[in-house]
Amino acid sequence: MKIAVDAMGGDNAPQEIIKGVEQARDLYPDIEFLLFGDEKKVNEQIKNNDRIQVIATTEEIEMGEEPVRAIRKKKDSSIVRAANAVKEHDADAFFSAGNTGAVLAAGLFIVGRIKGIDRPGLTSILPVPNPALKQNNFVYLDTGANAESKERNLVQYAYLGKFYAQKVLGVSEPRIGLLNNGEEEDKGDRLHKDVWQSLNATEDLNFVGNIEAGGMLSGQADVIVTDGWTGNAALKATEGTARTMLSLIKHGIMDGGLRAKLGYLLLKPVFGKIAKVMGTSTYGGAVLLGLKSPVVKTHGASKADAVKNTISQIKTMIDSKVIEQTVEYFDTELTTENVDKQPEND
Amino acid sequence: MKIAVDAMGGDNAPQEIIKGVEQARDLYPDIEFLLFGDEKKVNEQIKNNDRIQVIATTEEIEMGEEPVRAIRKKKDSSIVRAANAVKEHDADAFFSAGNTGAVLAAGLFIVGRIKGIDRPGLTSILPVPNPALKQNNFVYLDTGANAESKERNLVQYAYLGKFYAQKVLGVSEPRIGLLNNGEEEDKGDRLHKDVWQSLNATEDLNFVGNIEAGGMLSGQADVIVTDGWTGNAALKATEGTARTMLSLIKHGIMDGGLRAKLGYLLLKPVFGKIAKVMGTSTYGGAVLLGLKSPVVKTHGASKADAVKNTISQIKTMIDSKVIEQTVEYFDTELTTENVDKQPEND
Repeated sequence: MKIAVDAMGGDNAPQEIIKGVEQARDLYPDIEFLLFGDEKKVNEQIKNNDRIQVIATTEEIEMGEEPVRAIRKKKDSSIVRAANAVKEHDADAFFSAGNTGAVLAAGLFIVGRIKGIDRPGLTSILPVPNPALKQNNFVYLDTGANAESKERNLVQYAYLGKFYAQKVLGVSEPRIGLLNNGEEEDKGDRLHKDVWQSLNATEDLNFVGNIEAGGMLSGQADVIVTDGWTGNAALKATEGTARTMLSLIKHGIMDGGLRAKLGYLLLKPVFGKIAKVMGTSTYGGAVLLGLKSPVVKTHGASKADAVKNTISQIKTMIDSKVIEQTVEYFDTELTTENVDKQPEND
Repeated sequence: MKIAVDAMGGDNAPQEIIKGVEQARDLYPDIEFLLFGDEKKVNEQIKNNDRIQVIATTEEIEMGEEPVRAIRKKKDSSIVRAANAVKEHDADAFFSAGNTGAVLAAGLFIVGRIKGIDRPGLTSILPVPNPALKQNNFVYLDTGANAESKERNLVQYAYLGKFYAQKVLGVSEPRIGLLNNGEEEDKGDRLHKDVWQSLNATEDLNFVGNIEAGGMLSGQADVIVTDGWTGNAALKATEGTARTMLSLIKHGIMDGGLRAKLGYLLLKPVFGKIAKVMGTSTYGGAVLLGLKSPVVKTHGASKADAVKNTISQIKTMIDSKVIEQTVEYFDTELTTENVDKQPEND
């Protein structure tokens, strides 16, 4: 398999991107990489060219640029060129740590949607940090690709999440939950009440009902479906609070004298485990699900380790044929819908 | 001043409610209490009847009951009777740890809205847990009184929050922020873009722009305004993550052997401080702002300490005349609006 990498995206590019790519290359003998970026800067960082091909680009999309305009104007940017390689079937997946909006736009307008999917959903794999449970993580979408959503978008997210949980995370019958402001059936605004009814009425979804934002990490579902607006707010609040708690502990230790510092040394393995469990890079990057090929974005601050983890995730997506299954499902669905609709056309 | 207390609401009622009331009574010589509840159960718990009058009620609204129906049917419940005492000016404020929906409904339909306020907002005082800043907390509304909001609701929340921050928290020029999915002016859905423009155009609001859910606790504003839907999701995610982190630490320590336990003993003061800073009861209860009198709800799990803190908060609301100021502002506003509208009617 071949992965098209935007070597210029992210705060630590190209250095950490290339370091991560080389680590992944050494781990997975079946992956080849196309590295898009400034030829000189990229070549300087590569230690070993084995299964790595550098493709020179002359433009860069900066973090603050307006995404859609940027991908239209900068045709020779690493993001646009990498996405085009996927479109032209020169690569099987697209990876970037750059401008999120531009990656989403390149995914949507260059790689393209699966037939039957109205809007792709940006998908994160989040932790279930309870050692008493067997479940380690869950699929969460949409985290903010779309600020305004319709009922059918959330129902499609349920399927996208289901197939991802089955194929990539290996959950045989994924439990699907709906993020809502209460657990009961009649909770939420019009949209969420309608989505509840749709998900509940759907035979091939194992719908387990509403899940409140306070219980997101508690392992009540394998997939939590949300509109991008709420999903974004709840995810950012979760990440922000985790950061705040870690920083409170750090401040408390620094201000707590020798006693606290000694305590910290003794608890260091515990804190290390927590930081790993709650860390953003442990479970890979954010996948724009609903596209014809894997388009995966890692955090702008990603280091080599996060890059390597994300490439593992992309490899599993390709190996497991999760996208093929999604394409097939929505294709059959569309055909069935057409058959169902025949009488209306008569 | 007189406070009407629902003695029967909450998981630890009436015991902890009455304990907290007695602690507050001993602290504040100018407060009298009306305790509404089961006469026998309440009297059993009271140690000293000084400035405490028990008013016998025969019904109770349970935690799971449908709120509006409950307050219509159970006229002799402690919630309805306490709210009525405020309406009839027999008491200056209403306090409960009971069914949140029923307290909101009693506030809205019995105590009543301030003229000019379309919808009251449920308001929490949340921590700014950064020891490097002087700011300890901020005002956050609406946390979920309304699942669907209009532009004017959020603008009214900005004023309600501003007056609360000024009068009750003593912030002279409260900075007002808007919870949104990005910091730039053009972020968000239609509603949030419109609210941004309104808040920014308003001379008497010190609007500091959008704040992302991930930065809520970082002290960027003294008041964060949000629609109840998003506000609820972000608040619950914040509380849930704080709980998860504390539980992870606890599990880590329990599974970490003697070394971890020793580390815990040394860091106990640090953890104690964190639990206090992040605790839900440290800053009092949730206030339904926009009503004619203080209506304040504490967490159902509240113990005496939380009850006492919430009564301090109610006392400050009454002493500071925050509601009188709000009434006056919206009264002038309505008069001015009428003057402005005159030409249209000609």
